Amino acid sequence: MSELTLYLAPGTCAMAVRIALVEADAPHRIKRLDLVAGEQRTPEYLAINPKGRVPALVTERGVLTETPALLLYVAQRFPAAGLAPLEDPFLLARMQEVNLFLAATLHISHAHGRRGSRWADDEQAIAAMKAKMPQNMRDGFAEVENHYLTGPWVLGDRFSLADIYLFVVASWLESDGVSIDEFPKVAAHSRRMQARPAVQQALVI
Amino acid sequence: MSELTLYLAPGTCAMAVRIALVEADAPHRIKRLDLVAGEQRTPEYLAINPKGRVPALVTERGVLTETPALLLYVAQRFPAAGLAPLEDPFLLARMQEVNLFLAATLHISHAHGRRGSRWADDEQAIAAMKAKMPQNMRDGFAEVENHYLTGPWVLGDRFSLADIYLFVVASWLESDGVSIDEFPKVAAHSRRMQARPAVQQALVI
Repeated sequence: MSELTLYLAPGTCAMAVRIALVEADAPHRIKRLDLVAGEQRTPEYLAINPKGRVPALVTERGVLTETPALLLYVAQRFPAAGLAPLEDPFLLARMQEVNLFLAATLHISHAHGRRGSRWADDEQAIAAMKAKMPQNMRDGFAEVENHYLTGPWVLGDRFSLADIYLFVVASWLESDGVSIDEFPKVAAHSRRMQARPAVQQALVI
Repeated sequence: MSELTLYLAPGTCAMAVRIALVEADAPHRIKRLDLVAGEQRTPEYLAINPKGRVPALVTERGVLTETPALLLYVAQRFPAAGLAPLEDPFLLARMQEVNLFLAATLHISHAHGRRGSRWADDEQAIAAMKAKMPQNMRDGFAEVENHYLTGPWVLGDRFSLADIYLFVVASWLESDGVSIDEFPKVAAHSRRMQARPAVQQALVI
């Protein structure tokens, strides 16, 4: 099995893929991009990922992108780690539901606080998006707290990719101006994640 | 096997789940919500889906939401239909990558033209998002045209869930002020989809 190469940057959702790879004990290399310096926009990187974002995972069959897709790929390629309930369509769909909510609602809410220029050119509009962002993060995390975090882990007793991804998105709350302690179950979940040796190891990049 | 119930509304991404169910010949009922009348906000519906959106799929084990999660559920629960390359981690990840791009980039771009109030309260900001939306749809579909639509279908010769979802998102282009003919491969793909008997049947709701 040839080695995988993950392009990532600290503080981004790509860290979820890094954690999954370490949890799965998957042979991989990491390449760290400096987003502030614009390394995601160089011709070299755009040849790897034309979208100019992280993560990108280089495999022996080609490059894959989009965090929830990469997470599932890691789980399916390294099934011994048990990172996803691949054998149970309902439970897998619940895990994917949470990952999609993190990707298409919470990550998007977060992005409006920093990258509003994706959705409007007007400075005032960008400021208005930034102003509303903390409340959107609160609303999204209330949903996680009240409906999705059903046990010690997102799927109850079973650890999964959704825990990894939730941990990374929750780590953005403080810089988004929202205290994680507003959501006691999310806060306890993050502490549980931080206690995992693979998570500690993965965060060193 | 008990019957599934899909909550949907015409013109929404929930139609992708409807098409997948018909393609899979899956026994199901549909319940159509009138979004203009606010039926997605009634206490009855919020008890089913607290997020107040479509789609929601009621199964014998609970309610599932988020379009790409529901699509994969249909494929996994009705594997004979072959709607996803479940046995091939790389190809499945590519399909999921496209579905994620549709959900977290293109659907989000589209939403800024109609539901900007999700991300800003200011009227001018909402107008600024609406103004930028067509260009974002163009940029996203250029990505689909140039990188993702590799054959008659998204995965080349193999029909999959990504084709169904792409078809539904592409159907929004006209009302977003973008001609689908700017993207010849996407336009031909949509005609190919419209020719499928299951698609024709699924659109009658």
